[in-house]
Amino acid sequence: MNSYNGFFKKAIDSVKQEGRYREFTDLSRYAGNFPIAKNHANGQDVVVWCINDYLCMGQHPKVVKAAIDTIETMGVGAGGTRNIGGTSHPLVLLEREIASLHEKESSLIFTSGYVANDTSLATLGKIIPNLVFFSDEKNHASIIEGIRHSRCTKHVFRHNDMEHLRELLESVDINLPKIIVFESVYSMEGDVAEIAQIYKLAKEFNALTYIDEVHSVGLYGKNGAGIAQSLGYMDKIDIIQGTLAKAYGVIGGYIAGDSLIIDAIRSFASGFIFTTALPPSMAAAALASIKHLKESDAEREKHVAVVKKLKEKLSLANINYLSSESHIVSVMINDQYLAKKASGLLLEDHNIYVQHINYPTVPKGMERLRITPTPMHSDEMIDDFVSSLKYVLESLDVKQHKNIEQEELVNVF
Amino acid sequence: MNSYNGFFKKAIDSVKQEGRYREFTDLSRYAGNFPIAKNHANGQDVVVWCINDYLCMGQHPKVVKAAIDTIETMGVGAGGTRNIGGTSHPLVLLEREIASLHEKESSLIFTSGYVANDTSLATLGKIIPNLVFFSDEKNHASIIEGIRHSRCTKHVFRHNDMEHLRELLESVDINLPKIIVFESVYSMEGDVAEIAQIYKLAKEFNALTYIDEVHSVGLYGKNGAGIAQSLGYMDKIDIIQGTLAKAYGVIGGYIAGDSLIIDAIRSFASGFIFTTALPPSMAAAALASIKHLKESDAEREKHVAVVKKLKEKLSLANINYLSSESHIVSVMINDQYLAKKASGLLLEDHNIYVQHINYPTVPKGMERLRITPTPMHSDEMIDDFVSSLKYVLESLDVKQHKNIEQEELVNVF
Repeated sequence: MNSYNGFFKKAIDSVKQEGRYREFTDLSRYAGNFPIAKNHANGQDVVVWCINDYLCMGQHPKVVKAAIDTIETMGVGAGGTRNIGGTSHPLVLLEREIASLHEKESSLIFTSGYVANDTSLATLGKIIPNLVFFSDEKNHASIIEGIRHSRCTKHVFRHNDMEHLRELLESVDINLPKIIVFESVYSMEGDVAEIAQIYKLAKEFNALTYIDEVHSVGLYGKNGAGIAQSLGYMDKIDIIQGTLAKAYGVIGGYIAGDSLIIDAIRSFASGFIFTTALPPSMAAAALASIKHLKESDAEREKHVAVVKKLKEKLSLANINYLSSESHIVSVMINDQYLAKKASGLLLEDHNIYVQHINYPTVPKGMERLRITPTPMHSDEMIDDFVSSLKYVLESLDVKQHKNIEQEELVNVF
Repeated sequence: MNSYNGFFKKAIDSVKQEGRYREFTDLSRYAGNFPIAKNHANGQDVVVWCINDYLCMGQHPKVVKAAIDTIETMGVGAGGTRNIGGTSHPLVLLEREIASLHEKESSLIFTSGYVANDTSLATLGKIIPNLVFFSDEKNHASIIEGIRHSRCTKHVFRHNDMEHLRELLESVDINLPKIIVFESVYSMEGDVAEIAQIYKLAKEFNALTYIDEVHSVGLYGKNGAGIAQSLGYMDKIDIIQGTLAKAYGVIGGYIAGDSLIIDAIRSFASGFIFTTALPPSMAAAALASIKHLKESDAEREKHVAVVKKLKEKLSLANINYLSSESHIVSVMINDQYLAKKASGLLLEDHNIYVQHINYPTVPKGMERLRITPTPMHSDEMIDDFVSSLKYVLESLDVKQHKNIEQEELVNVF
């Protein structure tokens, strides 16, 4: 073993030297009192400003009750793969509900959104010989890995650049099968895909479409079905991928589409077939969450209002952030050491938790604080956050760029 | 889209034609009354004989209580990746407990055992340039995928064949870094790895060792730490991989080893970094389960007794099964259609659920019923199962091979 230690040490040293060694913050959120959590490093309460439980559904009484009731009646784990004892009734109901939410024939649940992308995309490459992928350059790591694992040809188009996508589509043999893979809301910038144009190009070049809606399901569209629903394109996209772990507040991921597509992926996806199913309680909790957000707009409306208020207060305080159409507010620091310091000072001196985002989650030089307001952030919390952030940025002498428009951002690459 | 339907249809037709199209059984297990479950196809109660919740810990009062208490205090989902708000305190405690269980410096939790293998092995290939993998031919799909994703050179040795492993090790440049990857209990045959000999070869050829203990943690060793513990090799294996979803009855997977190794994988594994953490409640439940099985031998002793009794009754009824040292009892059918029919008749006519196992989970021609007794299977259930199975095998005129020894089995390949 000793002769191997050098490899591991070198790997860790490299991330440390680049200022991107990750230290996890040990937290306990208080159910019923989100977004407050206990910071186990010092025992103090902190306000969490970076969680992806965007609507705090993880503490919603209906979601909590569904999980607990199901544990009481069915136990904790699923006990097996979907094929060998793991298909619990709540999973069956949840797959029906997800299909209905997206107005598709069928859906398939995975243990995470990451796995949904990774194994679905890899499997599409196995099912469709010579499939050519067209992938937005800002697509999530799980999409990148999934396409890599398909071993198919891949063309990466510049972020949201429809001219570039067209060029790449034109460069490939018209007779080859094609798929365009993109996200509806991009995680780190919070900007939104050009769904209408992508759909048009897909029709023109006879390509399949695969949209990752993980940062929009629950939040957008009249039933919370996402951006494709809100823009009227849900029925036009072939495969919709989503998560149960962000706005729905639980765990797991899924795809929805025609029965034929879903059934084929179900039958060949290694990452689906050979893994223990989601616990019945988690499926029941996700089902309760989706059903609630299908009917209720209150959480979405409050969420929009809090996001708007935060952006206004940041502007008033002359703190620059990426302007975006969505709920994700990124305050750019553009330096990995300063980003880490800012996050550390906010936590230690102000009891505010907002994780700094460094490479490889964002490109080097694009380091930031990524802020995700929830409906449960009060006016007082917003004021305290903005003044604390102001103080920290000034004390660190962070030279912020002026408000960056998406167009400018794209040009950075 | 229409032009793509042919690809999906062809894929599904191929599995249907080969008699291996999977139809999931829609079940609700009754907490407190395992192994009984409701079969939602007809509303009747069935006895489950194929679940991997080997000790029925998914219904253990301590495990159920830990999950419910944590949902009540911390909510349902984790809300973020480990780096961005998802490191809940129960996860921190669970990683400490797993390290302690395996007497290693450190551990790392993944959303599943599948992901643990897939992303850890792929990442080892990135950290150690020119790493050469030596992999048992019966290793699980997640190991196969992980090694494939590493893009490293791979040598597959015949199952448990130490001479073949030696030959392959000798065939590779002595100066190249090497890793031997194997399981402790093989899922489908239930046979056990030659740990002592593998360790000896690893020392001789200066190779790392990686053991998959998913079918043995909780079940073997004085603290339930697995086969490596029971054989006295736990401290000699570099990386131990395990699951929280089988004998521990919850969800999730992990690796344990030196801090340096674990920290390097933590820092580079895409499937770890970019996915929402396990829910705090599931971590707390797994923690309770591990702690209980560390102290209590009662479940393991009862489990061994039930397995022994089942094997005896099968022998008395002249039903042949793979002889193995472990708790997994495979009744060979060796035909995909008959295997499916046998499983169907048991479910429909006898209210017994034991899933047939077809390709690709086992090689073609090696189809079987894989039976997993638990401590909760009563004498009456065993008698009913054996007589029902006997009746079904006879009614289908299944020509069983005589009791198959592992050696014979290996020669099949």
